[in-house]
Amino acid sequence: MADSRAIGIFDSGLGGLTVARQIMNLCPDESIVYFGDTGRVPYGTKGVDTIKKYAAEDIRFLLGMDVKMIVAACGTVSAVAADAGRDLGVPFIEVISHSVKDAVAATRNGRIGVIATPATVKSHAHKNLTQKLMPEAAVFETAAPLLVSLAEEGLYQPDNEIARLTVAHYLSEIKDNGVDTLILGCTHFPVFEKIISEYMPGVTLIDMGVSAAKHVKDVLTKEDSRNTGEKTAHRFFVSDKPVTFEKTVKIFLGDCANNLQIDLVDVEKI
Amino acid sequence: MADSRAIGIFDSGLGGLTVARQIMNLCPDESIVYFGDTGRVPYGTKGVDTIKKYAAEDIRFLLGMDVKMIVAACGTVSAVAADAGRDLGVPFIEVISHSVKDAVAATRNGRIGVIATPATVKSHAHKNLTQKLMPEAAVFETAAPLLVSLAEEGLYQPDNEIARLTVAHYLSEIKDNGVDTLILGCTHFPVFEKIISEYMPGVTLIDMGVSAAKHVKDVLTKEDSRNTGEKTAHRFFVSDKPVTFEKTVKIFLGDCANNLQIDLVDVEKI
Repeated sequence: MADSRAIGIFDSGLGGLTVARQIMNLCPDESIVYFGDTGRVPYGTKGVDTIKKYAAEDIRFLLGMDVKMIVAACGTVSAVAADAGRDLGVPFIEVISHSVKDAVAATRNGRIGVIATPATVKSHAHKNLTQKLMPEAAVFETAAPLLVSLAEEGLYQPDNEIARLTVAHYLSEIKDNGVDTLILGCTHFPVFEKIISEYMPGVTLIDMGVSAAKHVKDVLTKEDSRNTGEKTAHRFFVSDKPVTFEKTVKIFLGDCANNLQIDLVDVEKI
Repeated sequence: MADSRAIGIFDSGLGGLTVARQIMNLCPDESIVYFGDTGRVPYGTKGVDTIKKYAAEDIRFLLGMDVKMIVAACGTVSAVAADAGRDLGVPFIEVISHSVKDAVAATRNGRIGVIATPATVKSHAHKNLTQKLMPEAAVFETAAPLLVSLAEEGLYQPDNEIARLTVAHYLSEIKDNGVDTLILGCTHFPVFEKIISEYMPGVTLIDMGVSAAKHVKDVLTKEDSRNTGEKTAHRFFVSDKPVTFEKTVKIFLGDCANNLQIDLVDVEKI
């Protein structure tokens, strides 16, 4: 049966818009309700209990918006707080498992790299799942927290020296380990794709947003819950509107950022 | 009359410990209650309304601890939310005005630089106050948000290439403007003192913690509220305990970090 309700997507901040963008591209008939917890970004440098609490609140907000599916467009939440997605009454999609499947399908030498936030790396979520699907795989994980701040501040241009140096700083060990596939294990990281590709030529980059969007489409098809009627406008909510907000939204959403309506949410009242 | 109650100090995270440290050094008989809002750090990239709300909550928490004075050891709060310190019933000390007085006293050519968070720079708090005290002064302000993330992650060592490059990135314009005095307008920044001094030799650096500590001592003396009795142990509260916490506390507090007891606070229940 068709279902005209929106897809709910949340992230610690604006990085999850890279996932929203892929879902918009792959499922153009669907409406999106996006919640970015910009008032408490970043999550990935914080403790697990704090991340779980924030994730539960983000989900509660989206459920209140009557969505038909919830996407945790946040690597950190997917890694350490996926439990928060149990028994919601609607499908819950996290971004790690599908990216790992794509990485396992892509690798030829069985050597896979992962860059993510400190909390995600500490959980070994990507590594554990990779070795479940491909026991002989060698997985090299590195925490790259500064890349989240760089992305949120728009310092990701291919010629930006600090971004290039930071990418090299975090990726040199993974590069030395001869990986042929690299999972961008935080949804902020696709904006560094060019810099990373130049630093590691020939390595396949796995964008979790692309992997998750394919899965979203599959689930909608399987559950026969695609929207076949009128499409309502996408809605965007944030818990803070920082100075550089419009610019940053444009970075992550590209042309999809035109004519967005953005509303503020008080996270303490969710 | 002597007053044995503690001095309350708060910051968005751990940067305010650079202020706490100066107060401990200058007022060794005083007990400190420190609250670092590590669950919501950083403040300086967020919107003014959010910062005001967080500051009011931080102050409410400290008042609940029965302190005799409150120090906003946060440049961002001092710049945009100093109103939150009105009518508290105890003295409220922010970190901007005293650092500006010290900068005006130090400059010889009347050219003063300020690096701070985006919210602080947007408020022009340092610039406005400098030009009130010294109308002929030329003040050059630059927002340096990445330095907060670098400091919270411990990437501040004098030989750290990313830190050096980031300092140069933010300070090149101020350097070209020929300042002889630079206010470190965010309490996280004193950890970069060596890198900044090497990048701008001969420039006087103003550490807001040093300026504020002198003022704290003056107020205690003037109000005759120094502690003359038994000193109780310092207490530290944070709203999140991230992975690298102990390491970072050591960065900011140095030897004062030994045997600290740290307790978690739920900011939503303040």
